[in-house]
Amino acid sequence: MSLQTPTSAPEALSDDELTLIDKYWRAANYLSVGQIYLLDNPLLTEPLAAEHVKPRLLGHWGTTPGLNLIYAHLNRVIRNRDASVIYVTGPGHGGPGLVANAYLEGTYTEVYSGIGEDVEGLRKLFRQFSFPGGIPSHVAAQTPGSIHEGGELGYALVHAFGAAFDNPDLVVACVIGDGEAETGPLAAGWHSNKFLNPAVDGAVLPILHLNGYKIANPTVLARIPHAELEALLRGYGYRPITVAGDDPATVHRELAAALDDAFDDIADIQHAARGGTQTDRPVWPMIVLRTPKGWTGPKEVDGKHVEGTWRAHQVPLSETHDNPAHRAQLEEWLRSYRPEELFDRGGALRPELRALAPTGQRRMSANPHANGGLLLRELDLPDFRDYAVPVEAPGASTHEATRVLGTFLRDVITRNPDRFRLMGPDETASNRLSAVFESTDKVWLSRTEPDDEGLAPDGRVMEVLSEHLCQGWLEGYLLTGRHGLFNCYEAFVHIVDSMLNQHAKWLATSRELPWRQPIASLNYLLSSHVWRQDHNGASHQDPGFIDLVANKRPEISRVYLPPDGNTLLSVADHCLRSRDYINVIVAGKQPALAYLTMDEAIAHCTRGLGIWEWASTATGEPDVVLACAGDIPTQETLAAADILRRELPDLAVRLVNVVDLMRLMPDSEHPHGLPDKEFDALFTRDKPVIFAYHGYPWLIHRLSYRRANHANLHVRGFKERGTTTTPFDMVMLNDLDRFHLVMDVIDRVDGLAGTAALLRQHMVDARLDARRYTREHGEDDPRIATWRWQSNR
Amino acid sequence: MSLQTPTSAPEALSDDELTLIDKYWRAANYLSVGQIYLLDNPLLTEPLAAEHVKPRLLGHWGTTPGLNLIYAHLNRVIRNRDASVIYVTGPGHGGPGLVANAYLEGTYTEVYSGIGEDVEGLRKLFRQFSFPGGIPSHVAAQTPGSIHEGGELGYALVHAFGAAFDNPDLVVACVIGDGEAETGPLAAGWHSNKFLNPAVDGAVLPILHLNGYKIANPTVLARIPHAELEALLRGYGYRPITVAGDDPATVHRELAAALDDAFDDIADIQHAARGGTQTDRPVWPMIVLRTPKGWTGPKEVDGKHVEGTWRAHQVPLSETHDNPAHRAQLEEWLRSYRPEELFDRGGALRPELRALAPTGQRRMSANPHANGGLLLRELDLPDFRDYAVPVEAPGASTHEATRVLGTFLRDVITRNPDRFRLMGPDETASNRLSAVFESTDKVWLSRTEPDDEGLAPDGRVMEVLSEHLCQGWLEGYLLTGRHGLFNCYEAFVHIVDSMLNQHAKWLATSRELPWRQPIASLNYLLSSHVWRQDHNGASHQDPGFIDLVANKRPEISRVYLPPDGNTLLSVADHCLRSRDYINVIVAGKQPALAYLTMDEAIAHCTRGLGIWEWASTATGEPDVVLACAGDIPTQETLAAADILRRELPDLAVRLVNVVDLMRLMPDSEHPHGLPDKEFDALFTRDKPVIFAYHGYPWLIHRLSYRRANHANLHVRGFKERGTTTTPFDMVMLNDLDRFHLVMDVIDRVDGLAGTAALLRQHMVDARLDARRYTREHGEDDPRIATWRWQSNR
Repeated sequence: MSLQTPTSAPEALSDDELTLIDKYWRAANYLSVGQIYLLDNPLLTEPLAAEHVKPRLLGHWGTTPGLNLIYAHLNRVIRNRDASVIYVTGPGHGGPGLVANAYLEGTYTEVYSGIGEDVEGLRKLFRQFSFPGGIPSHVAAQTPGSIHEGGELGYALVHAFGAAFDNPDLVVACVIGDGEAETGPLAAGWHSNKFLNPAVDGAVLPILHLNGYKIANPTVLARIPHAELEALLRGYGYRPITVAGDDPATVHRELAAALDDAFDDIADIQHAARGGTQTDRPVWPMIVLRTPKGWTGPKEVDGKHVEGTWRAHQVPLSETHDNPAHRAQLEEWLRSYRPEELFDRGGALRPELRALAPTGQRRMSANPHANGGLLLRELDLPDFRDYAVPVEAPGASTHEATRVLGTFLRDVITRNPDRFRLMGPDETASNRLSAVFESTDKVWLSRTEPDDEGLAPDGRVMEVLSEHLCQGWLEGYLLTGRHGLFNCYEAFVHIVDSMLNQHAKWLATSRELPWRQPIASLNYLLSSHVWRQDHNGASHQDPGFIDLVANKRPEISRVYLPPDGNTLLSVADHCLRSRDYINVIVAGKQPALAYLTMDEAIAHCTRGLGIWEWASTATGEPDVVLACAGDIPTQETLAAADILRRELPDLAVRLVNVVDLMRLMPDSEHPHGLPDKEFDALFTRDKPVIFAYHGYPWLIHRLSYRRANHANLHVRGFKERGTTTTPFDMVMLNDLDRFHLVMDVIDRVDGLAGTAALLRQHMVDARLDARRYTREHGEDDPRIATWRWQSNR
Repeated sequence: MSLQTPTSAPEALSDDELTLIDKYWRAANYLSVGQIYLLDNPLLTEPLAAEHVKPRLLGHWGTTPGLNLIYAHLNRVIRNRDASVIYVTGPGHGGPGLVANAYLEGTYTEVYSGIGEDVEGLRKLFRQFSFPGGIPSHVAAQTPGSIHEGGELGYALVHAFGAAFDNPDLVVACVIGDGEAETGPLAAGWHSNKFLNPAVDGAVLPILHLNGYKIANPTVLARIPHAELEALLRGYGYRPITVAGDDPATVHRELAAALDDAFDDIADIQHAARGGTQTDRPVWPMIVLRTPKGWTGPKEVDGKHVEGTWRAHQVPLSETHDNPAHRAQLEEWLRSYRPEELFDRGGALRPELRALAPTGQRRMSANPHANGGLLLRELDLPDFRDYAVPVEAPGASTHEATRVLGTFLRDVITRNPDRFRLMGPDETASNRLSAVFESTDKVWLSRTEPDDEGLAPDGRVMEVLSEHLCQGWLEGYLLTGRHGLFNCYEAFVHIVDSMLNQHAKWLATSRELPWRQPIASLNYLLSSHVWRQDHNGASHQDPGFIDLVANKRPEISRVYLPPDGNTLLSVADHCLRSRDYINVIVAGKQPALAYLTMDEAIAHCTRGLGIWEWASTATGEPDVVLACAGDIPTQETLAAADILRRELPDLAVRLVNVVDLMRLMPDSEHPHGLPDKEFDALFTRDKPVIFAYHGYPWLIHRLSYRRANHANLHVRGFKERGTTTTPFDMVMLNDLDRFHLVMDVIDRVDGLAGTAALLRQHMVDARLDARRYTREHGEDDPRIATWRWQSNR
């Protein structure tokens, strides 16, 4: 391995300090191996026997000694500088290491009182790891000090930056595995430094840990020439400090010096920025650490190299329960850490080692930023009613719903300059939230040019053309106790499907941990949606994110389809006040009809769904229910109702609008679910229901299949017919248009097939006419495009 | 802008050549603006009037002149060198540019005979763009010469590399927008050069087009210091050649020289590698092109700068229909290209310009690699029956299904050394396909070390820890007429949800274009699935990809859940032979029961689902149907059937196994859908069906909600209860275990609640016992873990 002398002198560590820090590292390594292997005999006070070893060995050793090494050295820096540091563990597979360190610091026992700092506590600590009824093998929500699982790789760096924003006194140490570094989100995440403001944000210290291997292969970054790696990291805008080696003493000295160098540099950068002497984007330090995979573990097993190779990834010795030779090697390995020097006979960490850990909230495992709910301060929200658009009559005027919301968000930003951020992949203006730029700018630390608009280092809107970065930053920001909203084109939010999955798992687990405090919900505003992608067409048309969210645990999943601006305001206010949810709001940006006054909107959103009497002709039991969810489906449903009341005035039509999609589920399945009785009262038990839905039609069936009237439910929605075309042509392509909805009514209401045959033919003709007009003129027939609901009450 | 002298002499272009190439560029720009704006008067033979202009202006100008510039210069290189080049358009929004070039080359008229090379053809060409019934605004499947839409950004480079693999004579020119360059997949995609073998693969020439802006913001890479950008690209392993400027003549000369330099270098690299004088990974050339956004468009509109700013992104003049000043400016803009010098009065491109384009298949718009089905050669497949595992009796022995498949894939690779690749994010061995390494290696061009295993430049397995790269490479490989399989952990395939969406759209559109030839299906093998993630736990447990695929168009979506090794072989053979589908196969890697002989497996897979008589006690109409899909659900269902036949011998149980999930849909909804009569014959019209399903239970309802017996369908599946625990504990956590399935039968078969109350209590007790055993011992009760089906026939 090529060694590079760190820029600071290696005297950062005295010989005594070196001895102690090496012991601390050995203690963490010992506890890590113990968790992976041992059921009992935690201090090896007797020879290791088969019954002391777990029958199923689950876990990952390879990354763990490196994580423990970094942890021990960060402890030293924290103590020396009274620094506030959290530890983001990219290689989450190193769960035993982070648990071990939380235990060594005493935090684990404070949080889980059943795991004491004694022999019995050690036994339980070991036994519970990757054990049924115990704790998972990864750094997870259960791990004190973590905001990051690292099971699905790629998000360590974006989580770290999210945590650092608006936390001026925090340093986020972010360990990046060289496997993870091959992922897309991580590769793009390096550029987060262009969005970190040293004047008001904290610092991120990336530590690229090159142990050389992933599961079964070498890694890309470990095998390119070191000069190429340095160029890459300098190109990303960092100053890399390299520490490399496999001799513990040398690496201890160099890593200590490197961390001092990095923390000095961070302090200088922040001092310059906060003193106003530096306004350019700084070149932040980072550390490249090259140490062997599975360092200090078995060098060879069954005649094959293990330490320093990919074979060290999971459990280097796999037959310790049944193979005495493996068991002997395990015992030798464990004893190589000399546990008797590290723990007293009662199982407590020796005081001179305990003294190496920071205390109280300075312990990385107890830093409140890593349990963000502890620090959460309510948003100071303006009264959303003040932003209401006037609605003289339902469906008589138009507005752009997201533009209305933008005025509310503008003032949310003004009132919460330290705890709310709006994320967007270069789409905030496109999604017509531009009012926010009356109160703030977009974060930008790079060079500006005269025609730039609204860029500044202290902006509250974060725009980068990466949904991964937006999502990851926001997750990190929320997990450390702040608030935010991610606005995104509806189709492209699928880019972060898997990140949503992982955040949902984290939230669901956190809710079951009494010591994890609730955090602000992850709020999505999806606009530029499937029905109005005029500039783009098929690639931009996909409403399936709702389906993904509907598969998550009901405690945390919420989906809202406000039909107009006032309902959007009411929903958004509700979501911003909520905790521990994933809230998906889908709303249009194009001019669309306004239906409800603010009072009506609040009442409607509180119920989540309801009959719109003003659009219904039924006074009692209807002949047919027209249901709708989403702005465009609502518009088409109203237009269909308009045709029906004029053409078939005796038909008793009930119109039901759904804002809160989860109301369709049974109350036994979702906290928002409607009791069957109430559902039946709205949708009847036996009348046809024509449901115009924003997304893939099958979701409505999936939510309501247990309802009495399900067999009469007929859903129209997006069925993957899309292109660049006019708004009305889009709904026609998918049979969601008003004329088709009327045809659906005629086809499904008993007796209408005969009596309304002529109307049905008119509808067929109207569709043909509409298509012909559109194809001739390149725009929709104005009689359709400018249709307004005319109240008949 | 900082200019850098290219390494080649600027004399690459003579003055005459410069004049001509500039004219060609003007022609492409003219046709691009024409498409965005004009309905009629295509050659401006009369003054531009309102009726000549489209009422709705949809499209993107900003990126287009740069795309056209690069295209014209690549044409020159192709002619000079008789090179085979395809053009991957990262900024797909520049659709009009690529359509314009295909038209200028004559390809467009060849493919779309209605669009002639005359005035009427020009009129139609302009009118159809972004017009109802016309073509989309993006580079799409409809665009000759494209394998890439670029609507959802991030995948240009991985598509380009996928196209280059195993195409030694092809150069893939890949234009990357600086917006796209901010995405994760693109940022990681640069490292694809570590997997490109100059001896047998073609070349990729990345052209990073820095026009400085995305929709409403500057871009990261355009605003970092040029030295930092160079370091970044060198760090990625490239030699950047920069061309920058806003004076056309200068840029023409420099770009021509830069392309000559790059193509010379590519030829040298390939010569050295193919002559055996160079075995290290080469440093490939690439081009950085800095030119203004919306170059040659309006400099100012309504007093604001447009050319060279973000305001040029879409349509620089937005009111050309109604605002005479805008219309006059449009006319001035169009006339600035001097169309009368470019086209004759009949509308044909002047011959001296036409002569600049390559001819025949050398035209990038007609290169057969961009219509891969033209080049598709069948896979030479061994007889999958030869890999069958012996099955003496159903459920009596175990094997690892994916390990069995590995032997088949090993020989597929051997027989198809030039047209099949296996992709995996470092999981091929973990997914137990290791037999493939008996016949091939993993592609690796970087340094190796002694403990590395199975790495070589000419490997057929591609492993990188990025699902995005695996998916993108495979898409590019398939779209250019080859075959492959992506093996992936089930949970993490969600990382590429959005890429799946886009590929699905591409396939669905391609199938409707008669000139696009069918390509090999996109095949997924998802293993290390939700039920057996022993080492990892919750973050690795997610079966929702199936739900995503089920929302795609039925013509292209296929999902298979083979229950054992022989069925997996049969399904895999079928998928590898298929065309234009997305095939998802979910199969376990852990030892699991074998049920069917190969003959039985073939018969079962051909039907897609069926009654397993040997596991059923019903001979005629059953009292209850036990249905199952997936290996673990099948195992638990059989174990439940085992309990029932012993404990309730008079209960008529029918066991139905489902391999092809889409069989559950009505035949009116999916080509694989089962007619109602056949469905009813299997699942009855009125008996309880207890369905044990691999994934989220609601999907089964969504597929079968129209069936007569749907109200009696009771589905068990994954309900987001996961952690690191034993196999049986996992199914118990989700109520999918054998004991719970028996309880479900008792609860739902009329009369059993009373007569089988004791059995039900036994089942409750058995679950408690199982949990207790597992939590005490850390492994499952061996009576459960080693359960085998005992034939009673």
